[in-house]
Amino acid sequence: MTDNMPVSVGVVGASGYGGVQLVRMLQDHPHTKITYLGGDSSAGKKFDTLYPHLGSFIDLTIQPIDLDLIADNCQVVFLSLPNNLAYGMAPKLLARGCKVLDLSADYRFSNLDTYQAWYGGDRTDQEIAQTAVYGLPELYREQIANAQLVGCAGCYVTASLLALAPLYKQGLIVPETAIIDAKSGASGGGRKAAVNLLLAEADSSIGAYNIGRHRHTPEIEQVCSRLAGHEVKVQFTPHLMPMIRGILATVYGTLRDPGLVREDLLTVYNAFYRNDPWVRVLPTGIYPQSKWACGTNLCYIGLEVDARTNRVIVMSAIDNLIKGQAGQAIQCMNIMMGWNESLGLPQLSFYP
Amino acid sequence: MTDNMPVSVGVVGASGYGGVQLVRMLQDHPHTKITYLGGDSSAGKKFDTLYPHLGSFIDLTIQPIDLDLIADNCQVVFLSLPNNLAYGMAPKLLARGCKVLDLSADYRFSNLDTYQAWYGGDRTDQEIAQTAVYGLPELYREQIANAQLVGCAGCYVTASLLALAPLYKQGLIVPETAIIDAKSGASGGGRKAAVNLLLAEADSSIGAYNIGRHRHTPEIEQVCSRLAGHEVKVQFTPHLMPMIRGILATVYGTLRDPGLVREDLLTVYNAFYRNDPWVRVLPTGIYPQSKWACGTNLCYIGLEVDARTNRVIVMSAIDNLIKGQAGQAIQCMNIMMGWNESLGLPQLSFYP
Amino acid sequence: MTDNMPVSVGVVGASGYGGVQLVRMLQDHPHTKITYLGGDSSAGKKFDTLYPHLGSFIDLTIQPIDLDLIADNCQVVFLSLPNNLAYGMAPKLLARGCKVLDLSADYRFSNLDTYQAWYGGDRTDQEIAQTAVYGLPELYREQIANAQLVGCAGCYVTASLLALAPLYKQGLIVPETAIIDAKSGASGGGRKAAVNLLLAEADSSIGAYNIGRHRHTPEIEQVCSRLAGHEVKVQFTPHLMPMIRGILATVYGTLRDPGLVREDLLTVYNAFYRNDPWVRVLPTGIYPQSKWACGTNLCYIGLEVDARTNRVIVMSAIDNLIKGQAGQAIQCMNIMMGWNESLGLPQLSFYP
Amino acid sequence: MTDNMPVSVGVVGASGYGGVQLVRMLQDHPHTKITYLGGDSSAGKKFDTLYPHLGSFIDLTIQPIDLDLIADNCQVVFLSLPNNLAYGMAPKLLARGCKVLDLSADYRFSNLDTYQAWYGGDRTDQEIAQTAVYGLPELYREQIANAQLVGCAGCYVTASLLALAPLYKQGLIVPETAIIDAKSGASGGGRKAAVNLLLAEADSSIGAYNIGRHRHTPEIEQVCSRLAGHEVKVQFTPHLMPMIRGILATVYGTLRDPGLVREDLLTVYNAFYRNDPWVRVLPTGIYPQSKWACGTNLCYIGLEVDARTNRVIVMSAIDNLIKGQAGQAIQCMNIMMGWNESLGLPQLSFYP
Repeated sequence: MTDNMPVSVGVVGASGYGGVQLVRMLQDHPHTKITYLGGDSSAGKKFDTLYPHLGSFIDLTIQPIDLDLIADNCQVVFLSLPNNLAYGMAPKLLARGCKVLDLSADYRFSNLDTYQAWYGGDRTDQEIAQTAVYGLPELYREQIANAQLVGCAGCYVTASLLALAPLYKQGLIVPETAIIDAKSGASGGGRKAAVNLLLAEADSSIGAYNIGRHRHTPEIEQVCSRLAGHEVKVQFTPHLMPMIRGILATVYGTLRDPGLVREDLLTVYNAFYRNDPWVRVLPTGIYPQSKWACGTNLCYIGLEVDARTNRVIVMSAIDNLIKGQAGQAIQCMNIMMGWNESLGLPQLSFYP
Repeated sequence: MTDNMPVSVGVVGASGYGGVQLVRMLQDHPHTKITYLGGDSSAGKKFDTLYPHLGSFIDLTIQPIDLDLIADNCQVVFLSLPNNLAYGMAPKLLARGCKVLDLSADYRFSNLDTYQAWYGGDRTDQEIAQTAVYGLPELYREQIANAQLVGCAGCYVTASLLALAPLYKQGLIVPETAIIDAKSGASGGGRKAAVNLLLAEADSSIGAYNIGRHRHTPEIEQVCSRLAGHEVKVQFTPHLMPMIRGILATVYGTLRDPGLVREDLLTVYNAFYRNDPWVRVLPTGIYPQSKWACGTNLCYIGLEVDARTNRVIVMSAIDNLIKGQAGQAIQCMNIMMGWNESLGLPQLSFYP
Repeated sequence: MTDNMPVSVGVVGASGYGGVQLVRMLQDHPHTKITYLGGDSSAGKKFDTLYPHLGSFIDLTIQPIDLDLIADNCQVVFLSLPNNLAYGMAPKLLARGCKVLDLSADYRFSNLDTYQAWYGGDRTDQEIAQTAVYGLPELYREQIANAQLVGCAGCYVTASLLALAPLYKQGLIVPETAIIDAKSGASGGGRKAAVNLLLAEADSSIGAYNIGRHRHTPEIEQVCSRLAGHEVKVQFTPHLMPMIRGILATVYGTLRDPGLVREDLLTVYNAFYRNDPWVRVLPTGIYPQSKWACGTNLCYIGLEVDARTNRVIVMSAIDNLIKGQAGQAIQCMNIMMGWNESLGLPQLSFYP
Repeated sequence: MTDNMPVSVGVVGASGYGGVQLVRMLQDHPHTKITYLGGDSSAGKKFDTLYPHLGSFIDLTIQPIDLDLIADNCQVVFLSLPNNLAYGMAPKLLARGCKVLDLSADYRFSNLDTYQAWYGGDRTDQEIAQTAVYGLPELYREQIANAQLVGCAGCYVTASLLALAPLYKQGLIVPETAIIDAKSGASGGGRKAAVNLLLAEADSSIGAYNIGRHRHTPEIEQVCSRLAGHEVKVQFTPHLMPMIRGILATVYGTLRDPGLVREDLLTVYNAFYRNDPWVRVLPTGIYPQSKWACGTNLCYIGLEVDARTNRVIVMSAIDNLIKGQAGQAIQCMNIMMGWNESLGLPQLSFYP
């Protein structure tokens, strides 16, 4: 970034929904220049044939995934691929001096046994995985600043952790009482043909899936356990919603101290997120709508205390493809590069 | 019903969404004849000017609400009005010998202090209210059979109680751990103009409301307490969904016995609902989609046990306007009249 | 149907959206018994594993497609398959004495050159194709009554023709001015994974496709030409809508006689459809909502005359999977069997 | 704009959907400062109580509508009010030297008789109305540059005219054959409670309304007549769509010259819009999705020629609240102020 030269960035896996958000935001980012877009089945295609609305704004062609080519052309590389692929690519890119931000689960776990238990794969890269920093800036900003490899947090995980972190950090809830009832738009399933994600199947309906065994569970527990200082288990239930974007997580926990009221908790949350430009704690009595966050990198948080049951209920809303994926990766990049954390990130949605 | 004469029925408050479901089903019911439709602002209008798709199928005119006229013309009366109105009408209709099914909250509470605490109003009709039976056939079938006045269960309440009843009845969960995270389509708000229910506001989004203070809470607790044999408090959180019809309740509870597995619970549920034609317990591993229930009087129930957290998660899906409102009222009427409980009720949805 | 024995019916291609509507309606039909469900990739599966909401209501297993097996077991066979497959099956079934209703395009064209120009395939079955009757009862009721083979009308075609038929039949419009701007729900694309039909792609948006070259065009023109008594070309533009079911066709034509007013046209339409139980011409000033027709076999028609431009605008609404597909096939079967045309068909939607 | 002082702008009618888009964009505009927000029923409220997601980003309070106060504080005033109100305010603001952009219909008509025939009202301000310029920059850029009063084009009108203008300007179609079949999201109805705009009513359905008598008709005709050089009548049919934002207009016209092919027309359109940053003519064979335009000030145009029928079909997509309303007003302001036409306007949507 010396001399105002833009930093060269590449996106591997540019054709998916995560990819197109990255391209859209990196194109407008004041300090980056996209020098490489990579894909497998899409190699050779002009990017705007995949996303015609981008037209002349994005005049780039998808290239084959060639690690040397990438390293030759990019200072920063975003890996936006299915799980189990990044760990075959990141080591070489790191060795060539690239900064790497992985949007898959490959580098989210400090314990690779946990990774392999939930995601399979054959990991022999413990050493490099050890150097990866968990990409959730609100909790790991300093480590991200010094990282060369970041494993960006998952979408459900981001919504869940931003709701839970102050509670575990301050020891406010009985640890094993945390329940996360999460609702996600259908873009979370990616741009791949799947019958259950057809409009004809998913519209006008809601259903839960993967109860007690969704892969984001160990990721949430890993961070909550660190915050709590001891092993924590959470209940996590995802639901598929009839909408394109957005996640709302409704989080329940039993308060240790029955005397706490809503304003106490709001004070805690406001203090906890005081320096976080992308978390907005809502005023008393206001609960977030998931769409408020859509098209932005914001996480909106509202909360309530139910004195009858002695529980706190926290709601957090994010755009699953921005704060839950591509925006968060760019936020991490900004921090890694020493830039203002908010550069190039969309701030306000259009309403309605 | 002697001599195959149809029973004369009336609907007070016919213009709303509950009303139009009632009219639609009563019209097709083999043993009833609609002899009166009543409304306030809609009095004098032909019913099909309110709902043009019904056209010549329903050739009835809305009449003013006149209790004598109603009692003269109807053996059975459905009151489908806002809260706080039915208790001014039911006594007279009962005195005139009508059977009365109230779809509002007026006759759902055995303790009128509870009613007044949550709904206001000035109740001096304790004696009559005492005779009202709670209109949830799966739990109160026998009492309904002998009732002259039924206070039909609310929509969220029906979904919640059908999920919770076997747990409380059998003492399977730690009572105070029950959490109901419920999601409802927008028709639950009725056919009245309200900014927050506009498509432009409510589409493509989800948000919670009335956390810890929704009026269906005491109704759920009243029945759960009876089932448990002691006072029970539940956590109830409603969400507004971007869809027209349907409720999905995701219910959490901590098992008393950590050794129970999914199949044990399914056995309990199947036994509990063995004789209930309108509850379908799904096979192992199948969770309900809310839209499966839409257009039917069915409640679909699926469940899961999470051995990691020792919780049971039960999902129940209903059509908020049928099993959650008008269909349930007709089911109650069938029982009150000594007819087959399923008469005139829609059984299978069209999919998708 | 002598002796009240139910007629045995089979559905080939039962796993798709057309198939499940057929199964749902044939199951409730008073005169039919489903004796065979056939599929290819789904062979061997219980039907309710494909559609779990049907549960114990439908206790049938999909069987391999074996024409002898089908003919042994079924008096009536519905072929609900992709185009280009039925014409390899129907001849043998007909030879074995089955009545055949094809829901694909294979038997919709009297001129097989037209078929092959738009659908490809290698047709050498002109003789049998000649015997096929076009399955739109409102126009071909008598021929259907005597047919052994019916090629049921397409979904867009049904909506278009029911709007246009009175105009062409009575010579009311300048023939080449007919424009059909049609809007369809996403279930028209079938239950197959396709990226453009994902909720994430198709929700909250509308777009046109296949302009000037949609395969339903020659089918519309074939019938309009017959009605007009000379060759007619129409403009047909389909749009994909963010909804599951339903088609609205907005049809424009310039009136030959500039003196005609709305009431004149309504008189013509009411006379034209006087004996058609499944067409409802709406009162003056009422235009159809596509969802009024959903879940029913009805076609709602509304119209307007614009004296400023001398055009008639006709709107027709159907459920693309019922009147546009499976319901129409059952209506045709009823006619072929000499039954009441309305048997087993759903008549009124639930609203909203 | 000398000295880099921001220009002071006010929004009268800030609480509606048009208002909130204006506030959102003016807040980010590099050359403007919001100095006044006015409302009637909302006066006294903080803006973020109406739109909580805006939170601390917008720290402004709605004030009563007081013309002197406005003129004292604003160099530029946006009137975003229901029809029939602006013409009582604009004269005074103009007299005080403000530049005025009206988003209602009040100043869109050069002939006030036409206005009064379609909108009622009692207009005696012909002199001032004469000075108003029609706010569609692609057609009236130079006049806007010199205007003090602009009557911004309506939403349907913008989509319709951008599709039709090259055809009429170049005399390519038979004038009276133009048909506009338009589809709009529900936000076009504004943020006011109306039963037909409830999600429960409008979701999962499409219907036409105001056929042959929608108020945008004379506005379209006024401009088409100017372009054609003679009186032109068009057929305009609006439809309400189950989506929040976006308009798709599908426009039909019969070509004068049957030899023209798609590429000829694309050449004409590309030339016509060569200098228009907010119109994107799509490549051959690509048709616009309405959502591509949402969240941007762009109009996407695709077209097709049907050689069988000798018609051109043009599709145009806009965001009804941005290019169709608030964005267009800002585009006009940029031109009036001599700034770059694109300042402060959103350019690319997020997809999906």
